[in-house]
Amino acid sequence: MKVIPTGSTIGILGGGQLGRMLSMAAAQLGYRSHIVCPEANPPAGDVAADVTTCAYEDLDTIRRVWRDVAVITYEFENVPVSTAAALEDLAPLRPNARALEIAQDRVREKSFATELGGDAAPWADVASRADLATALHMIGTPAILKTRRMGYDGKGQARIAKSDEADEAWADVQAAPSILEGFVPFDREISVLIARGLDGATALYGPIENTHVGGILRSSCTPVPLSPVVEARAFDLARRLADALEYVGVLGVEMFVLGERVLLNEMAPRVHNSGHWTIEGAVTSQFENHIRAICGLPLGTSTTIGAVEMRNLIGDDAYGWHALLADPTAHVHLYGKAEVRAGRKMGHVTWVR
Amino acid sequence: MKVIPTGSTIGILGGGQLGRMLSMAAAQLGYRSHIVCPEANPPAGDVAADVTTCAYEDLDTIRRVWRDVAVITYEFENVPVSTAAALEDLAPLRPNARALEIAQDRVREKSFATELGGDAAPWADVASRADLATALHMIGTPAILKTRRMGYDGKGQARIAKSDEADEAWADVQAAPSILEGFVPFDREISVLIARGLDGATALYGPIENTHVGGILRSSCTPVPLSPVVEARAFDLARRLADALEYVGVLGVEMFVLGERVLLNEMAPRVHNSGHWTIEGAVTSQFENHIRAICGLPLGTSTTIGAVEMRNLIGDDAYGWHALLADPTAHVHLYGKAEVRAGRKMGHVTWVR
Repeated sequence: MKVIPTGSTIGILGGGQLGRMLSMAAAQLGYRSHIVCPEANPPAGDVAADVTTCAYEDLDTIRRVWRDVAVITYEFENVPVSTAAALEDLAPLRPNARALEIAQDRVREKSFATELGGDAAPWADVASRADLATALHMIGTPAILKTRRMGYDGKGQARIAKSDEADEAWADVQAAPSILEGFVPFDREISVLIARGLDGATALYGPIENTHVGGILRSSCTPVPLSPVVEARAFDLARRLADALEYVGVLGVEMFVLGERVLLNEMAPRVHNSGHWTIEGAVTSQFENHIRAICGLPLGTSTTIGAVEMRNLIGDDAYGWHALLADPTAHVHLYGKAEVRAGRKMGHVTWVR
Repeated sequence: MKVIPTGSTIGILGGGQLGRMLSMAAAQLGYRSHIVCPEANPPAGDVAADVTTCAYEDLDTIRRVWRDVAVITYEFENVPVSTAAALEDLAPLRPNARALEIAQDRVREKSFATELGGDAAPWADVASRADLATALHMIGTPAILKTRRMGYDGKGQARIAKSDEADEAWADVQAAPSILEGFVPFDREISVLIARGLDGATALYGPIENTHVGGILRSSCTPVPLSPVVEARAFDLARRLADALEYVGVLGVEMFVLGERVLLNEMAPRVHNSGHWTIEGAVTSQFENHIRAICGLPLGTSTTIGAVEMRNLIGDDAYGWHALLADPTAHVHLYGKAEVRAGRKMGHVTWVR
């Protein structure tokens, strides 16, 4: 296993809070981070050795500033695949472009999981208004229409309660290539995070129970009282996906639990919001294990050190930061974002009990 | 209590590993760090929002680049007091200049502790060769001659086994103003770290048992099997010093244990190497509590979450980093120092059991 020596520079595409926490984990192991992202003064910039502001499509600039990077990773799943793939001649891209490509397209993601024997809600590819009619006939209502690409935090989604809402939903997704998914009356939303090393060794976090409000992750907790069958299925699905992708790094897999069934919701080829509690709540955090994996190092153990709850600070929640600090058991994390906006993830809090 | 708002910039004098870990703790709470130090590419630079390379005496430059800092702190106790004090008109200096001034001078430090009722090994102020003769007559041998100022990691010290070694010792300290300390056949070397908030609230770490090799801290562990009397005396001394200094931030107090006696060795007005284990081994790390204190925030609890051992990676030890990563219970920290030198602190490892 070829190890990236400590002191080397890691190129990170994306400069949000995930890049911020990755940069700190990299620094703990003596690596330097060089962030590339289109936004000026990104949250990751405050803790990275270097930051370059340029479009993800500006390959000339990226190639110039990243001449010295030893490995490339990303913290944002909507980085253009063409950029990521083109940079592979500079340094190894981990996770690989295929993981990015599949995760960016809900239809490819679902097909891929299904081919691996994974369970999912009924779904259909919707390329046109006519496809939507066929899909609704087949799947029925209620259902959810989601754009195939560029959806996150509940964006690009429309619920269809009855067939006569199809026109409205098609307008909501702006007639973009989409997927129709049957509505699942799930018992729980869970996630599993899997770290997979360059040698194929894995470390698992979870299952984690997640609560979303308005499509945005509100809180996560672990352990979750699941039957051994459900837990095994959740871990198994994560392992199959990671192995089939020859994945290197941390992969987030969101699932629905319905009785004993575990249905794939979506996967994120990056460190994941539902794993922020691993900073204090696990022996090795998801961020450190992502860095270990992409640098060819042995993974650290993912064992939890207690029962854990993580709550996102979204929008106005951030104004409560000072009160939270008075709770001596709360681990408060703020991302240094200057502007508080509705729906914006400003920080998070973790409790370990 | 006036709170420094998250998003503000903290000015840090000194750019070593302590500044590096302080910057990361500051970032966790959404603060930006601006490092000032004379060395180019300091370890803290990789995780700080800004770094300025200039002499500590270059007040014009520091004033210019630090126009926007909300609070000033230091990670190195040999920062010129004149600089620290002069910067107090820019922003609050925490800990204050008096703490720095007393800690920089072994004679003032010992006098100060003694006045507060603290116990210490017999000592005498040595301003000249004649003073040394008098001091040796009074204290006897074995004894240790230490320069009053600028000593750290065992530098500026000479052991005197017999009186006829006085000339050699005086030459070793280059005839600098010094202190002669009677040699203490101590049972243990311990330290206590005290975080003191702007409101005078305190949080204590330790006692920690420390092992030095060649004057450099080799390892620290806690808890230590001490009698309740000794433990209470150690905490009491730390509290007295911090209160008397109206200290804000983390203060490291090194002590010798001799039977039931607790003798002050020295104090460091900053986060302390013997507290690096607090990152994983305490609910709130010394670094976070230093940032909380200087920003006027409530302190986090300093409770430990297990038995802890910390080992410094000194010089060549750093080459063993990869093997240490294979130990799934080891928390490896590397400081990103390019050059391995004998005696140089390259990183540390913490185990929590």
